[in-house]
Amino acid sequence: MAFCNEHFLELQGAYLFAEVRKRAEAYKKQHPDADIISLGIGDVTQPLAPAVVEAMTKAVAEMGRMETFRGYGPEQGYMFLRKAIAEGDFKSRGVDIDPSEIFVSDGAKCDTGNMQEIFSDTAIVAVTDPVYPVYVDSNVMAGRGGKFVNGGYERIVYMPCYEECDFKASLPVHDPQIIYLCSPNNPTGTVLNRKDLTQWVRYAKQTGSVIFFDAAYEAFITEDDVPHSIYEIEGAKDVAIEFRSYSKTAGFTGVRCGYCVVPHALKLETKSGEMVSANELWDRRQCTKFNGCSYIVQRGAEAIYTEEGRKQIQATLDIYRNNARVILEGVKEAGLHAIGGTNSPYIWLSVPEGMTSWQFFDFLLDKAGIICTPGSGFGPCGEGYVRLTSFNTPELTRTAVERMKKALKEIK
Amino acid sequence: MAFCNEHFLELQGAYLFAEVRKRAEAYKKQHPDADIISLGIGDVTQPLAPAVVEAMTKAVAEMGRMETFRGYGPEQGYMFLRKAIAEGDFKSRGVDIDPSEIFVSDGAKCDTGNMQEIFSDTAIVAVTDPVYPVYVDSNVMAGRGGKFVNGGYERIVYMPCYEECDFKASLPVHDPQIIYLCSPNNPTGTVLNRKDLTQWVRYAKQTGSVIFFDAAYEAFITEDDVPHSIYEIEGAKDVAIEFRSYSKTAGFTGVRCGYCVVPHALKLETKSGEMVSANELWDRRQCTKFNGCSYIVQRGAEAIYTEEGRKQIQATLDIYRNNARVILEGVKEAGLHAIGGTNSPYIWLSVPEGMTSWQFFDFLLDKAGIICTPGSGFGPCGEGYVRLTSFNTPELTRTAVERMKKALKEIK
Repeated sequence: MAFCNEHFLELQGAYLFAEVRKRAEAYKKQHPDADIISLGIGDVTQPLAPAVVEAMTKAVAEMGRMETFRGYGPEQGYMFLRKAIAEGDFKSRGVDIDPSEIFVSDGAKCDTGNMQEIFSDTAIVAVTDPVYPVYVDSNVMAGRGGKFVNGGYERIVYMPCYEECDFKASLPVHDPQIIYLCSPNNPTGTVLNRKDLTQWVRYAKQTGSVIFFDAAYEAFITEDDVPHSIYEIEGAKDVAIEFRSYSKTAGFTGVRCGYCVVPHALKLETKSGEMVSANELWDRRQCTKFNGCSYIVQRGAEAIYTEEGRKQIQATLDIYRNNARVILEGVKEAGLHAIGGTNSPYIWLSVPEGMTSWQFFDFLLDKAGIICTPGSGFGPCGEGYVRLTSFNTPELTRTAVERMKKALKEIK
Repeated sequence: MAFCNEHFLELQGAYLFAEVRKRAEAYKKQHPDADIISLGIGDVTQPLAPAVVEAMTKAVAEMGRMETFRGYGPEQGYMFLRKAIAEGDFKSRGVDIDPSEIFVSDGAKCDTGNMQEIFSDTAIVAVTDPVYPVYVDSNVMAGRGGKFVNGGYERIVYMPCYEECDFKASLPVHDPQIIYLCSPNNPTGTVLNRKDLTQWVRYAKQTGSVIFFDAAYEAFITEDDVPHSIYEIEGAKDVAIEFRSYSKTAGFTGVRCGYCVVPHALKLETKSGEMVSANELWDRRQCTKFNGCSYIVQRGAEAIYTEEGRKQIQATLDIYRNNARVILEGVKEAGLHAIGGTNSPYIWLSVPEGMTSWQFFDFLLDKAGIICTPGSGFGPCGEGYVRLTSFNTPELTRTAVERMKKALKEIK
């Protein structure tokens, strides 16, 4: 008989966003005339930049002609894109990353989900609470979770992030081998500044752990003291893998492209004490189980690094940044407490006293026609909050905020 | 200290095609004027069909306009494509597959590499010898290989395919839980007919094993008695997962799209005897670690199923089919023995007596300027053969065959 991977059965309930979708759909069925605005799932609404459209149109045409057709590309991504990344995302910030340390993929969800494969299945994993569910679920599937007890998996180290500490995690008491950090943070919208990251790099060096640094929202950073890359911190190449995505930066959620950086300096250990290059392990993983990101998509990503492309994506990002400001101001006017939104597309909103995250979700849906994401879906410490996103259109964002203010007045 | 997944270190040597590329590049460096023709890696050369180009150009334009922009798509693929697949690849052959059983991805290499994740890590894996290396390597990485001893991994069941048995594997003596079958076969170019597949489905039912049926080369089938899908065999939905690819069918090697079928009827067992839906497990895997195939690419794939698209890809396939015929006839004229090429883009060529696969590789490169793939790279039973592909242009294929004939005359 063929046995299944029973670690899959340890997974708790449905994927958060699937549950949000299900509840919203049930509501729409009962209220077919309801005019619903989503500030829930972190999906973009603005079209691709003209430079990206032009580059991809050209690439499609190339693929239709014998002389310019391209078959299999390198599993690691085309050198034209890896070089543009090294130059545009790192050298421009004084960070020296070699193109051979960059692996282009079809998105950061895949990379953050798959990277754990090159680590021992007994590795102890640490995550913040609240946290992006993929970090946890991909490790549970690989057997690093264990049973779900008291709101968490018994083998995962949860690092609580309390409002009193600016939603920043303290260093874990028991040394983990893999530490997931996300800055700007999903879901809280907070950031780790230079001092915070320096502390984490020192901790990783001292304990021999590896940091998975998710910088998917890097493009939203506006403050000077916030590193865009963990490699801006000295010594980080010895201890950190960084994940980047074009999803929010350039509206690529449906196009699918991202990359990760696995520095040559990063070594993992064998049980017998030999040192193995993480870059070589990941290269082998990708060459065996991945066949490269679409050529057409990679040409689109390359266009983001042109002067024209850069300007165009900044114009779009400004729309979302402004939405974030509108939401933040609106909920504060309504008397609620909120953080995030400054270096992030996410606003982390305290729900009115006496309500749970899901109760406030239902309230917003029913009284204001707004979909949010309940904070408790990101972990026990997310209880009492909801996440709002700034990715809708300016018009609908403004309408949503007005509706929210009105609905909240009624419960005061 | 962070420990690595030591199963990666059990992997033998470099990936076959990387080794071929390395040797070819070394030769070119020494002979900069050499005019090399590749019949090695299975990569296509003909451009995309006009219907595909048109559909993707339109999709790119859609993504550039607010009203038609699309963000995250379903992790399982868009329903427009899943329906086109159910209709065009299955219903048209009398097979009833529900769209919810179809999962669209960025290629069959990813799917065949990742599918093992939903199975127990103690599952015994059976592969044919010779075999496409990804099946073996992805299982070794997951810990199902064990040590490499006497030309094979100790925990993998190898099913030798001898010329005397038409390169068809016998049923394994020890019952495996996962059986990889590829028809039309890579690398031997042979096929499993209705009788063969019926036998495998019966065996899987009886022993409770699951068949991974790789039908990536299905479009090359010309003979009537050869099933295009394993689901043409009664009862196969209870025991088989099927993998399909647009890479060779429609020149998508650089575009990246494929799909797999995980029937609702297929159940895996837990150690305590419960039955779990393989479809639900794979769905959970994809929702957690994959974010859907690019919208643009899926529109391109959809166009393959239009009347126009179908005709266009058949015209391209005819070019490759004709190349296969030219190679097959040529090597036979040169006095060599070869099979495949009829239902497959691959020709499996016996090397001249007294030579090994790699010696003949060097001979063809040096004396005829031709790159092939040494059969021994596909497994011990591949020794004494090389694989030739029909994916080059008609002109270069003819030139290559003439050169081969000339070179072989000299050693007679």
